[in-house]
Amino acid sequence: MARIVMKFGGTSVANVERIRQAARHVKREVEAGHEVAVVVSAMSGKTNELVGWCAQAAPMHDAREYDAVVASGEQVTAGLMAIVLSEMGIQSRSYAGWQVPIHTDDAHGSARITGIDPANLNERMSSGWVPVVTGFQGVSDKKRITTLGRGGSDTSAVAVAAAVKADRCDIYTDVDGVYTTDPRIAPKARRLERVSFEEMLEMASLGAKVLQTRSVELAMAQGVRLVVRSTFDDPDAGNAPGSEWGMTGTLVCDEDEIMEKQIVSGVTLARAEAKITLRKVNDKPGVAAAVFGPLADARIVVDMIVQNISDDGQITDITFTVPDSEFDKAMKVLRNAPDLEYESISGSKGGAKISVVGVGMRSHAGVAASMFRALSDKGINIQLITTSEIKTSVLIDEEYAELAVRALHTYYGLDKAEG
Amino acid sequence: MARIVMKFGGTSVANVERIRQAARHVKREVEAGHEVAVVVSAMSGKTNELVGWCAQAAPMHDAREYDAVVASGEQVTAGLMAIVLSEMGIQSRSYAGWQVPIHTDDAHGSARITGIDPANLNERMSSGWVPVVTGFQGVSDKKRITTLGRGGSDTSAVAVAAAVKADRCDIYTDVDGVYTTDPRIAPKARRLERVSFEEMLEMASLGAKVLQTRSVELAMAQGVRLVVRSTFDDPDAGNAPGSEWGMTGTLVCDEDEIMEKQIVSGVTLARAEAKITLRKVNDKPGVAAAVFGPLADARIVVDMIVQNISDDGQITDITFTVPDSEFDKAMKVLRNAPDLEYESISGSKGGAKISVVGVGMRSHAGVAASMFRALSDKGINIQLITTSEIKTSVLIDEEYAELAVRALHTYYGLDKAEG
Repeated sequence: MARIVMKFGGTSVANVERIRQAARHVKREVEAGHEVAVVVSAMSGKTNELVGWCAQAAPMHDAREYDAVVASGEQVTAGLMAIVLSEMGIQSRSYAGWQVPIHTDDAHGSARITGIDPANLNERMSSGWVPVVTGFQGVSDKKRITTLGRGGSDTSAVAVAAAVKADRCDIYTDVDGVYTTDPRIAPKARRLERVSFEEMLEMASLGAKVLQTRSVELAMAQGVRLVVRSTFDDPDAGNAPGSEWGMTGTLVCDEDEIMEKQIVSGVTLARAEAKITLRKVNDKPGVAAAVFGPLADARIVVDMIVQNISDDGQITDITFTVPDSEFDKAMKVLRNAPDLEYESISGSKGGAKISVVGVGMRSHAGVAASMFRALSDKGINIQLITTSEIKTSVLIDEEYAELAVRALHTYYGLDKAEG
Repeated sequence: MARIVMKFGGTSVANVERIRQAARHVKREVEAGHEVAVVVSAMSGKTNELVGWCAQAAPMHDAREYDAVVASGEQVTAGLMAIVLSEMGIQSRSYAGWQVPIHTDDAHGSARITGIDPANLNERMSSGWVPVVTGFQGVSDKKRITTLGRGGSDTSAVAVAAAVKADRCDIYTDVDGVYTTDPRIAPKARRLERVSFEEMLEMASLGAKVLQTRSVELAMAQGVRLVVRSTFDDPDAGNAPGSEWGMTGTLVCDEDEIMEKQIVSGVTLARAEAKITLRKVNDKPGVAAAVFGPLADARIVVDMIVQNISDDGQITDITFTVPDSEFDKAMKVLRNAPDLEYESISGSKGGAKISVVGVGMRSHAGVAASMFRALSDKGINIQLITTSEIKTSVLIDEEYAELAVRALHTYYGLDKAEG
């Protein structure tokens, strides 16, 4: 017997029929003898509708009222889920954030969970009930409803799982796991059986579609094992042979749980990256701040940053990337930046960032070198390189993006078996 | 300076633009120096949508979950209203039922308010804030969300008004007051400046369109003066001369507040009433129970009941009315009723009940007689008569319904002045 938190996202509870489909997954786990708590998002589209109304009511509005309005979406889903579960013969009741209670700070609209009192949930679960908790929200010390910000439902689920000491937290979504790369680009992409928290974080561009970065960070910190799986798989298909959690899906877990570490677990792609180069910048303390401070002030998100060691310790070149859509704005900001001296500024849109990610890189030298060779074999020119402990990224011409992804996917042995 | 509770129904808050229109009424009162609390319904259509989802989730569902789902509608409106008011420069915050708190029993789906703690609302109001309270809902001792049943928002408003000792409770709706009769039938119908609680209750068929009976009962018991008025009147039109509350509308108040009592204040019409007569029923104790018990068990609502004193104290005739739609069912129930002996049963659909209502009847004899004469003058045959202290009702052929309403309206001097 395990204790499981099951989280269903917006598309999984988009209407009553979908909620019924989701509930059948819950039923399967309950009938297998597990203790289950459910966390739900709002029906897909509902949160946008509510947010839209707030914006229509006033362009600048009190975040506390925004939270009161927007949090209603999950309240609806939680009640409906409890009704559907009861109809299936499973004892169930809904809990709004304030009823659990899920305590948060009072940073309305993007609150942080400060603690969850597990007593109510534990009591229900240990007596065979299935509590259904509203994701995305909590209650402040001032007894006002708070929301965690977009994607907060995953975070709620992980926090609930940590509070009730669940064996795992199953995140049900519209895809059946985390893939080695985007299957639309590389048809040979395959689902990963397991992936480490660190890899999941580095694969943000792949992973963000299925799991909020914030929830992965919390899961890593709290040691909550996550399973990404699909609501649309047949709930009654029974346990798949050889899989501990009974269905297809990807386990996101501590590196220690992954026996055979792949050197590279995934290949990610980010399109529409523009690069900007400042030449012959005075290399003195504070120069980075002089470049990136004004960009941050203008709310421009900078991605890759490369600065070479200068030959003489006085003059250097700095290159970095921003989204194509921010390119013109960034150029203007830098041209007008005070306290910034350089000889020339240049740049261009239309780059693509390709990354290979894998915890195995830690113990395997030469991953970067082999990546460059694989790209060179296809005649792809590398414009920028950045590396972290478990990730190597290059900027290339966007025209070559798909070719590069497929080449690296094959090169690192990620392609699924034929047939 | 007065203290006012302003309640806005579903059509008055149907979308953000309507909420803004409603908020302008609030602004007018605040700027006039009044202390204001607002009570809101769900956007029109929203409650039906939520109720529909519950029904779709399971035909028989836990009323506690139904309440959690359905109560979300008012939460949305309250938050949006607070945002709109703040945008207009009026300090405002929303309160869900549990935040006030509005305590109720735990009869989920049709809960009764057991008490409202006015401290939060009083504190806000006396410091110039406008609290916006969700109508229709409260919280049980078990800290679960309850709803008061359909139309409960009016009741919430009256209860809040009583709790904060408001000078009056303004019910904003889509009509501008209570009329002497239905203007669609009698174009000369006019708006009543004042009407007593008792009259309002007896005019249910007119009044129910603008005020829930339950809220009028509570207002009468708690001595809360109600004003029925229209959200769609120009909020900035200023105070109408001679009207204490500044706009058109109808004050529903204690009889003592009405100086010149009309003999008849209104003429009401209920269509599609079927009559059923049981002839030569054994007139013994319990016979009424034997007739009406089985009908109640079958959930058939009986309206008028007439039983004549029997000549010999042993045999009597009983006639009563039910909705046309229930006629066949009622006939069947009575034919199969045990313990009920009668010689014959007969009946027909297609009746109309016409009532004249007025507290002045108490002190004016002969209202009933004059009513019969007025109808007789138009050649209208009276099939049944019932009377209460301030109301006389007759059943006539439905064909004559409009004619009868107009005739009585004119006869009792209710027609508005020409031009």
